[in-house]
Amino acid sequence: MDNLLYWVGLAAVAVNALTGVLDAGRKKMDLVGVTMVGCATALGGGTVRDLLLDRPVFWIGDQTYLVVALATTLAVFFAVRGLRLPPHLFLIPDAVGLALFTIVGTQVALEWQAPWLVASLLGVITGVVGGVLRDVLCNEVPLVFVRGELYASAAWFGALVLVGLQALGLSPVAAAWIGMAAVLAARLLAMAYRITLPTYSERE
Amino acid sequence: MDNLLYWVGLAAVAVNALTGVLDAGRKKMDLVGVTMVGCATALGGGTVRDLLLDRPVFWIGDQTYLVVALATTLAVFFAVRGLRLPPHLFLIPDAVGLALFTIVGTQVALEWQAPWLVASLLGVITGVVGGVLRDVLCNEVPLVFVRGELYASAAWFGALVLVGLQALGLSPVAAAWIGMAAVLAARLLAMAYRITLPTYSERE
Amino acid sequence: MDNLLYWVGLAAVAVNALTGVLDAGRKKMDLVGVTMVGCATALGGGTVRDLLLDRPVFWIGDQTYLVVALATTLAVFFAVRGLRLPPHLFLIPDAVGLALFTIVGTQVALEWQAPWLVASLLGVITGVVGGVLRDVLCNEVPLVFVRGELYASAAWFGALVLVGLQALGLSPVAAAWIGMAAVLAARLLAMAYRITLPTYSERE
Repeated sequence: MDNLLYWVGLAAVAVNALTGVLDAGRKKMDLVGVTMVGCATALGGGTVRDLLLDRPVFWIGDQTYLVVALATTLAVFFAVRGLRLPPHLFLIPDAVGLALFTIVGTQVALEWQAPWLVASLLGVITGVVGGVLRDVLCNEVPLVFVRGELYASAAWFGALVLVGLQALGLSPVAAAWIGMAAVLAARLLAMAYRITLPTYSERE
Repeated sequence: MDNLLYWVGLAAVAVNALTGVLDAGRKKMDLVGVTMVGCATALGGGTVRDLLLDRPVFWIGDQTYLVVALATTLAVFFAVRGLRLPPHLFLIPDAVGLALFTIVGTQVALEWQAPWLVASLLGVITGVVGGVLRDVLCNEVPLVFVRGELYASAAWFGALVLVGLQALGLSPVAAAWIGMAAVLAARLLAMAYRITLPTYSERE
Repeated sequence: MDNLLYWVGLAAVAVNALTGVLDAGRKKMDLVGVTMVGCATALGGGTVRDLLLDRPVFWIGDQTYLVVALATTLAVFFAVRGLRLPPHLFLIPDAVGLALFTIVGTQVALEWQAPWLVASLLGVITGVVGGVLRDVLCNEVPLVFVRGELYASAAWFGALVLVGLQALGLSPVAAAWIGMAAVLAARLLAMAYRITLPTYSERE
């Protein structure tokens, strides 16, 4: 399981760095601005999780995460510069990053002895904070707050699937894969069919 | 005293969650967006205090706080939806939350051996950070920064009252109640009579 | 070296508080708003560094930093109020604060056994986060993200100079002075000659 978490964590870092670059690029930031947004998107969620759990921050001790985030950022920057990309292209990798980070975050919190409800919320935080930082730094209202389609709720659903399957006795590795599939499926279906939650609104 | 801090802390969480929902609702967020803003408003200030003091974060180990925040958020969401509320209604619970959190934050910092000036500032941080998060997430300029009326200054005044009364030998519990009353009175009087501090301005 | 770090740290706190006041003043904030922006600008970068490294936060245990930040804020507030200042005056102390904090941050991280690449990035974070907080609280897009001229890149360049010179066997104190000069020179030259990095942009 630790091995799986490590590789899924690296993949999540790379995918989130990619979405950060695509978003920052639309704002015409320069190379360093793009790099910082890419790294913040890639490392932000796990950092907040580790601070809240009072664990050592994952990318401080092991330089690999930072190298992956920087390498992805630079590669995407030079690969995509000058191409005309559809503006919403980054929604797909964003959904993948959400799924990977949510499950890694929930699992790490469970292994750190957090109560299950807290662990599922820490999973959601790990999943969405990177994207929130990206959007705040690019001066946009975060996707997670304004989109009608399921976003944090998709993450929470998958985190609860992970917690529930483990409570039922499934192996952590199997539960993790199913949880990731649950987040991704919920988010993609919600985007495809415009599934939304009830909106709060005062009488209009 | 610890008992008082625990219950005042829970009350502060509930009151701040309420203000988060009322504010998020005006932005027509959906159920999960509202829930996240409610929880961030309720838990944000104490979280920052605990991170700065290097204490375990208060809602990670004890699931009660999170349950209270979630339950308040859901209850207010469904109770208030569809009502037409006066737009500034949330200023009163906001003042109550400010008073409760400021005093809890200052007292926790004092018990954690922070120097008195640092402790009073940590009280202000505990009091205002939840509201700042709420306003930033709702994409508004934070109340604490633009309002002419006393806000952070009301919190700081009450925190210093708490510190001063304890230094004079008053029991911590009595000092806490008087400090809360001081914050609340200062904030409400400032709103009622539009009491303001000198404004910085270059010659106009 | 520890002695040098201490005094450079205090100087950096004072300089950054100054820039916070100048910026907050243009927004016509009141005394407490200005104080909070000044303190956040002065203490924010080092706080994030200490949280990421899991060190005790530098201004919690030693009240001196907070006193310096508050005293600078108040002194500047009353000294500058009513003067008509050129709007970009604060760019010079901002560059000085960037240089001081970047080098202190990198050196502290190295002494805390962070790997060199992580240490240089923590130096950049220490240098830029105070200014980012200032700009976010004043509701502006952070300097570091939109300016064409070198900013974070100047900080990173100096941090790498510091790391490199120490690896070559230079004494930490000498390396620190040269690193500070490198950040300052890079930033000031970039402003004077409008040196920029390549910008990401999709075909236009």
